[in-house]
Amino acid sequence: MQIIRGREDHLKMKIGNQNYQSIWLDESDPAVVKVIDQQKLPFFFETKELRSVDDIFYAIEDMTVRGAPLIGAAGAFGLYLATLEINSQTNIREHLSNAARYLISSRPTAANLSWAVNYAMGKLNKDLSSKSLSGTALETAIEICEKEKENCRQIGYHGLKLIKSISKKKKGIPVNILTHCNAGWLACIDYGTVTAPIYFAHDKGIPVHVWVDETRPRNQGAKLTAWELGQYGIPYTIIPDNSGGHLMQQKMVDIVIVGSDRTTRTGDVANKIGTYLKALAAYDNNIPFYSALPSTSIDFSIRDGVNEIIIEERDPEEVTNITGFADGKIQSVRICPEGAEAANYGFDITPARLITGLITEKGICRATEKDIKEMFSDKFN
Amino acid sequence: MQIIRGREDHLKMKIGNQNYQSIWLDESDPAVVKVIDQQKLPFFFETKELRSVDDIFYAIEDMTVRGAPLIGAAGAFGLYLATLEINSQTNIREHLSNAARYLISSRPTAANLSWAVNYAMGKLNKDLSSKSLSGTALETAIEICEKEKENCRQIGYHGLKLIKSISKKKKGIPVNILTHCNAGWLACIDYGTVTAPIYFAHDKGIPVHVWVDETRPRNQGAKLTAWELGQYGIPYTIIPDNSGGHLMQQKMVDIVIVGSDRTTRTGDVANKIGTYLKALAAYDNNIPFYSALPSTSIDFSIRDGVNEIIIEERDPEEVTNITGFADGKIQSVRICPEGAEAANYGFDITPARLITGLITEKGICRATEKDIKEMFSDKFN
Repeated sequence: MQIIRGREDHLKMKIGNQNYQSIWLDESDPAVVKVIDQQKLPFFFETKELRSVDDIFYAIEDMTVRGAPLIGAAGAFGLYLATLEINSQTNIREHLSNAARYLISSRPTAANLSWAVNYAMGKLNKDLSSKSLSGTALETAIEICEKEKENCRQIGYHGLKLIKSISKKKKGIPVNILTHCNAGWLACIDYGTVTAPIYFAHDKGIPVHVWVDETRPRNQGAKLTAWELGQYGIPYTIIPDNSGGHLMQQKMVDIVIVGSDRTTRTGDVANKIGTYLKALAAYDNNIPFYSALPSTSIDFSIRDGVNEIIIEERDPEEVTNITGFADGKIQSVRICPEGAEAANYGFDITPARLITGLITEKGICRATEKDIKEMFSDKFN
Repeated sequence: MQIIRGREDHLKMKIGNQNYQSIWLDESDPAVVKVIDQQKLPFFFETKELRSVDDIFYAIEDMTVRGAPLIGAAGAFGLYLATLEINSQTNIREHLSNAARYLISSRPTAANLSWAVNYAMGKLNKDLSSKSLSGTALETAIEICEKEKENCRQIGYHGLKLIKSISKKKKGIPVNILTHCNAGWLACIDYGTVTAPIYFAHDKGIPVHVWVDETRPRNQGAKLTAWELGQYGIPYTIIPDNSGGHLMQQKMVDIVIVGSDRTTRTGDVANKIGTYLKALAAYDNNIPFYSALPSTSIDFSIRDGVNEIIIEERDPEEVTNITGFADGKIQSVRICPEGAEAANYGFDITPARLITGLITEKGICRATEKDIKEMFSDKFN
């Protein structure tokens, strides 16, 4: 049941000759969770060992791991590491509840994190006295990884149809896809949500080209999406986040596909800050705008994204200082006057009315409560 | 007639105890045009000496000087420097026409540059054989500077009314103004277009707060607008360009004011890339969106911004590498994989339908051909 590199033949992602997921259990030490250090990409490809709940918390908080499905999986692995901290003195119920709350607090906006941690807690609560608590926790973390991978694979198949149909009309001219942030395999254990349809299209010989929003302030587009696409051999062009409107005005974008960190039951999408602006531009220029998301990112308890979803505020230093590569090392430069005030909101809400459709693991549906209910009737209440 | 620092009591801008414009003729050497080096701000305040048409061309091209009114003035000073290159062998008409074409080619989008150079050429062509050609050229450059300063002052008075009226409704709570790029005094010889109403409001004790879009890729917001506002003591917060939509959704913006590099006779506005996205968000959230512009930025010959205005493409390295400050010096870091493709479009078009109004030196008008014609009937044909 361990997730190891190179083991599964359907893994898509090779770095050099090695298959990778974005999170896995160490092959030689089952008390160690390993991740790709996304803070160092694309400059250095390094893995990082996480050995405690604290390690997981900080890896999520400082974005060593990021991306809605991945931080969900990381949260579940965090609970597994919490079970390894149990000794004969531990009040197990309290210990695990505290760990769960703590892990969920590492990033407030993404639905998958609370979903995954709560799902794992549900499994553990059934059997708190069991000697195999750690086994259950590990199995659950792996189950979540497998589930998210399969979700992405299905999203890939459904999204592929959209790209195929545009490609048919363009008669061999590459399909121009614009995306924001990174909703690739790095964010999603494997495949990615936004990238799965793109990888599948590329595999099928459909010519695609991706406009990659750099995605300030953390530049996940320029750093991670560009790197991922480059590794896979997919043509891409990095653009400042300001550029999408112009490209759409000039008909240089055929479709916009973005991820989702939290989706309301009515189809509002909380995603990386700036997504809403691209949705407005797509709407204004009659360009299809899709959000690719596993149902684990749907929060069936809320209706109104703008008024109900908590938008994470992060350290202003992520705005005032930019990290990049120079002189053989990762360095940070200040881009504004010393002591300047800055604000760093992590997400915005794209109202359902601007969204052409949601690409989910069960298929594509409109971003309406009625259609979401039809597709996920089991989860509606 | 020389423009010198500290001479005019209505100059707004002090750096330390010294009044500055963004361009002036050197006090001790009339063959030298001096400018504030905007490439070094906010990290170092340095001036630069420009001694030839080439110097002016490169200062505009590499954005040592930037901003629509300022590059117009710089172009006119360029023609003045061209007259100083005339000797007994020179075919004067050819020499000056070549210089004019060359200067205009340094940046294709801003209307003021071609306006100013053509205006100055008109004056020179009347009197090509005169011994005082250089005198005429210098007078014209200074006349253009004075005109742009007066334009900004008038824009300030008209724009002030908008801020005042919002402030009245907010009863002492600061008026939140969002702006994109730098349309401040640095861009405009003095006062600024967007900033003039803000400086005047501040002078009158009206509490204001400015959301400063950092304005990738060159970060004129984070580097220049933040610096300007800070020097003047106006509260501001730098935000990534992605943030405006969220702030407007959350009613944290009262008014958006941006500049214009070229305005059509129908009211479409070409401004720094990303402006269009903010206009869409303002429109979607019922927030007033104004463009502050002198009539020198109106191109009365064109009707359709999206299809008729040439959008400058700049070096992709401005996207892949970011310049900032570290270890006591200005440094550049790469923010993406080595060899990554990038695109760098300088401007986008905000269609008139999204613009609440234009703040001009003659007053505020709607962004329609009818209203622009009424206000500038002398320039319409």
